[in-house]
Amino acid sequence: MTANEAILLLSGGLDSATVAGLLRRDGRVLHALSFDYGQRHQNELDYARAVAQAVGVASHRILKIDLGGLGGSALTDAALAVPETGVGDGIPITYVPARNTVFLSYALALAEVLEVTDIYVGVNSQDYSGYPDCRPAFIDAFNHLATVATKLGVEGAAPQIHAPLQQLRKAEIIRAGLDVGVDYSLTRSCYQLDSAGRSCGRCDACRLRLAAFAELGIADPAPYR
Amino acid sequence: MTANEAILLLSGGLDSATVAGLLRRDGRVLHALSFDYGQRHQNELDYARAVAQAVGVASHRILKIDLGGLGGSALTDAALAVPETGVGDGIPITYVPARNTVFLSYALALAEVLEVTDIYVGVNSQDYSGYPDCRPAFIDAFNHLATVATKLGVEGAAPQIHAPLQQLRKAEIIRAGLDVGVDYSLTRSCYQLDSAGRSCGRCDACRLRLAAFAELGIADPAPYR
Repeated sequence: MTANEAILLLSGGLDSATVAGLLRRDGRVLHALSFDYGQRHQNELDYARAVAQAVGVASHRILKIDLGGLGGSALTDAALAVPETGVGDGIPITYVPARNTVFLSYALALAEVLEVTDIYVGVNSQDYSGYPDCRPAFIDAFNHLATVATKLGVEGAAPQIHAPLQQLRKAEIIRAGLDVGVDYSLTRSCYQLDSAGRSCGRCDACRLRLAAFAELGIADPAPYR
Repeated sequence: MTANEAILLLSGGLDSATVAGLLRRDGRVLHALSFDYGQRHQNELDYARAVAQAVGVASHRILKIDLGGLGGSALTDAALAVPETGVGDGIPITYVPARNTVFLSYALALAEVLEVTDIYVGVNSQDYSGYPDCRPAFIDAFNHLATVATKLGVEGAAPQIHAPLQQLRKAEIIRAGLDVGVDYSLTRSCYQLDSAGRSCGRCDACRLRLAAFAELGIADPAPYR
């Protein structure tokens, strides 16, 4: 364990790729953690791998976990349609129940095993408009949990969750990433990626992403069908 | 969803079997949740199934999760020996990093899917002498997390974690279970169960269990080798 090490939840999307780029710029040694959780857009893991390789992480674990088996989300349940009607009010059907709680729990476990106390996630303000487990209050509550739930915490070196993008809008995130050389052609955000890695351009995630690139006057380097 | 439903983390050990018995006595409709997490004593799941059947649960999910892949515990890593030298100070090597955090995260996800707000766990005072994630402060922190991490919480009906055995010693737990007809011959506590389901009688978990039965002047109905 060194203070220079950090654990990063890496999804293949642009937010966590941006966090990876910022941490690389700071010279951190990264342990990436991704999840194969029965997501419909499972080839997002190919992009997580590509980002991990581009950044040069020290390790990358992909944990196969049984979250889809619980059902209840359009992202894990093929019987539920991914909406293409634009971002609405309320909690979207693409919300995967307790996903970030589960992911951060595994990050805590890895923090205990590696004795690394910094955990980074890419959650941000446009996500937390819809998902309860992306809001600042969630991160705060998880940080409190981390102090009492862990051996590291008992020993006075509690793991801490960092969400450096939390206050940023999507366009600001892309700008920050471009400034540190993030290659967004390696990332995908689409909930309905096809097998060739092309995005649909119509789901909520695509709409947010495309609007952000448009706001910056830049073409999204990822392919759309 | 009815207020009569409850989610129960069920391990095959005597604590969660006791909670199951208490909830059955109260006429609750139970959804049991168990984990195949790469534990060495994997046939404990056979006992979880037996307890679920004896209690007559409404559903029993066994999630296969990749916790052993992270390493760091004698319970999931065959390279680490389970201690047989008695209960010491500090956090035992049998501590599985963040196990209860991970388990309760899945229980939160199931609460969201089923819209059931009561989650029961069997953690108790003799566990929290050693494991950070069994202490009352942990349960309190997780309850706070549950209010902000979930759709149910956003909607004003946050899931709540109940740990009814928390203040009880092992002998008191067994006494409470016997009073409601729990069949402890169906349960196992051993970290080193053999394939015939016989306990070692020497690991920390066996020592605690045997001492509790001895204190009550009752023979443990489970077999030892």
